[in-house]
Amino acid sequence: MRAEIVAIGDELTSGQRLDTNSQWLSQELGNLGIAVGFHTTAADELDSLVDCLKIAADRADIVVVSGGLGPTADDLTREAFSLAFDRPLELDPESLAHIERRFASRGVTMPERNRVQAMFPAGCQVVPNPNGTAPGIDLTLERNGRTVRLFALPGVPIELKEMWTQTVKGAIGGTSAAPANLIRHYELKCFGVGESRLEEMLPDMIRRGREPQVGITVHQATITLRVTTNGKDDVECLAQAQPTLDEIRTILGPLVFGETGDELQDAVGRMLTAAGQTVACCESATAGLIALSLTESPAANASFAGGRITPSLQALSVYAGEASVGETAVVEQAASKVREEFGTDYGLAIGPIDESGAYSFAVADAKGVVSESSQTLGHPEIHRPRAAKQVLDLLRRRMMS
Amino acid sequence: MRAEIVAIGDELTSGQRLDTNSQWLSQELGNLGIAVGFHTTAADELDSLVDCLKIAADRADIVVVSGGLGPTADDLTREAFSLAFDRPLELDPESLAHIERRFASRGVTMPERNRVQAMFPAGCQVVPNPNGTAPGIDLTLERNGRTVRLFALPGVPIELKEMWTQTVKGAIGGTSAAPANLIRHYELKCFGVGESRLEEMLPDMIRRGREPQVGITVHQATITLRVTTNGKDDVECLAQAQPTLDEIRTILGPLVFGETGDELQDAVGRMLTAAGQTVACCESATAGLIALSLTESPAANASFAGGRITPSLQALSVYAGEASVGETAVVEQAASKVREEFGTDYGLAIGPIDESGAYSFAVADAKGVVSESSQTLGHPEIHRPRAAKQVLDLLRRRMMS
Repeated sequence: MRAEIVAIGDELTSGQRLDTNSQWLSQELGNLGIAVGFHTTAADELDSLVDCLKIAADRADIVVVSGGLGPTADDLTREAFSLAFDRPLELDPESLAHIERRFASRGVTMPERNRVQAMFPAGCQVVPNPNGTAPGIDLTLERNGRTVRLFALPGVPIELKEMWTQTVKGAIGGTSAAPANLIRHYELKCFGVGESRLEEMLPDMIRRGREPQVGITVHQATITLRVTTNGKDDVECLAQAQPTLDEIRTILGPLVFGETGDELQDAVGRMLTAAGQTVACCESATAGLIALSLTESPAANASFAGGRITPSLQALSVYAGEASVGETAVVEQAASKVREEFGTDYGLAIGPIDESGAYSFAVADAKGVVSESSQTLGHPEIHRPRAAKQVLDLLRRRMMS
Repeated sequence: MRAEIVAIGDELTSGQRLDTNSQWLSQELGNLGIAVGFHTTAADELDSLVDCLKIAADRADIVVVSGGLGPTADDLTREAFSLAFDRPLELDPESLAHIERRFASRGVTMPERNRVQAMFPAGCQVVPNPNGTAPGIDLTLERNGRTVRLFALPGVPIELKEMWTQTVKGAIGGTSAAPANLIRHYELKCFGVGESRLEEMLPDMIRRGREPQVGITVHQATITLRVTTNGKDDVECLAQAQPTLDEIRTILGPLVFGETGDELQDAVGRMLTAAGQTVACCESATAGLIALSLTESPAANASFAGGRITPSLQALSVYAGEASVGETAVVEQAASKVREEFGTDYGLAIGPIDESGAYSFAVADAKGVVSESSQTLGHPEIHRPRAAKQVLDLLRRRMMS
């Protein structure tokens, strides 16, 4: 069973508005165990709508359409359903009464143009809209020997969500071949190697068609491995995912720092809290991003004692309080200095990024100081978060050693 | 001339990630006078990708694809192009060299897996990717007697945007028929009053149907007034907007700090640069966000001398170096201390947010110290950006006084 989500509106195809309904509907369908194959967004043009409704009905078993049910001339969803599936529009007296009541309750008589909101493709069911004037469409078709069920809901998120929850969700649950089949995603967060290198370490695991499926995505140098399973409940889903999760952890070892939702600062924060230890940092390249990350992490917040921002190598040297003998040495001195000044167990420091894109960072603790250097090629907006993560990861590895 | 945007990835169809690339690309295409007819999002399945590439090529003149160009097994865009349009994949030695150089410059040998990123559908042009390993595809086809041009770019927003701006935009501009009617937005950025209060100050200006139309949006306490016009060129668009822009500036005066794309740190940075002055900051509630904002602003970067992170009132008091006589006094002392320590013209300081949600912030300069207090009801995380802006705005007003 596969679903397609169709969003309708010039404001979406023109980029004036961001479509969040489709993401929400995808998550809801996933929770019903129905995979979403496509999202389609179409402008308010009758031909386009007819076109994409036919395509959706040809390749999906469930189609959920949002938008285009208003009363104005550019609301074409009803007409598109009628033309695409050859269903003449018919007036639904009950819906008309509902719409008239809504206006009456505000002491207004219904404008004639709202009458169109009570017109429905022949043979469909009406999806009630308690919060608005536009009821939804629930149409079941036989198409190329398959049964396809199409729903149309208003684009207003509040109305769409309420109508989904009150009516459509249950209706689909009933339809669904394997009812109450859940889809669950389990994530392992990794840091320290490139995407392709990491995949080489997991031979054949990212391959399409593997059960359970493993997906890999990268965001600012943090790699997320997503194991997707489905089953009748969470216990069954987790049971299917566990062997794969265990295998990945065994292969990647310390490269895995956390699970769904974790960032490096959360992992570091948990380790600091468990050890009852604290940290301070001196930042050049990251300009406060490490301090901000540790402060915003509920796990790390209490262990962060404070920091120093030194934009230039000169400002860093002044702070480190030694004649500069190479950037790395200055950074190491700064790590010791900030640890000493704030009286913490760990002191972090990162130097500025030089013309060649090179920078050094260090961690100081009771055992001494360790430092590493790195090189950025990417866009400056990318390197700052990446550099902050490298410093946090050096601390993480230091604490594990 | 009509365009279609195709986004690829399970993380999008499953609803795990929100697709923002398609919105951005739609706006960019609109600026080129090219209407977008459809957005399509497809899962990482070869059949689905081939299917939706063919459909897009059948109904659009320009197709822009994002995602699926990574080195791993679930990156299928190249293969989908090859199958959909019957173009065997061929190795591009130049791209391979570029990818190898990127790894080499980081002192790493290229993993074999990345070799696939140098494979391209026969007869296409390569879109250079200065910030990443995945070059893009630029393929022109004859299809049903029409010429269709398809581009494939990485899903990483920063790479996609740079490749669009450096290469694709110009290529399409060349393709494009006579630049159709342009739509232009002119923004005025405001800070210091609430949205409804500001609307009261602009009687009847936000009304629907006004020409030109004025829209109002708020993001983290920064209010954006957007004047929308359309015309045959920028000169005509601006001529239509100018009287409205002037009227708004006259009414709002110093509440307006900038124009399209401006943030408070940019406005403050321009003022500091013009005056040849510098600033340093001591942050509790904002935990480095002010330092980061000033550093990331090209206009402010050179005027920022450095800062101090003091997470708690106690840490702040220790730094201020005086017995605490009420938070405001400590914050004022910290502003003077950081100004003195970094030898800057201005010193900024903000205290922690107390249990009641109250916090103080101050600006110190040669004339003395000014401070203000504020109150948050929301969660500190949400309030942090607003607090940082309040401090920058106090500096802005101090410099104007």
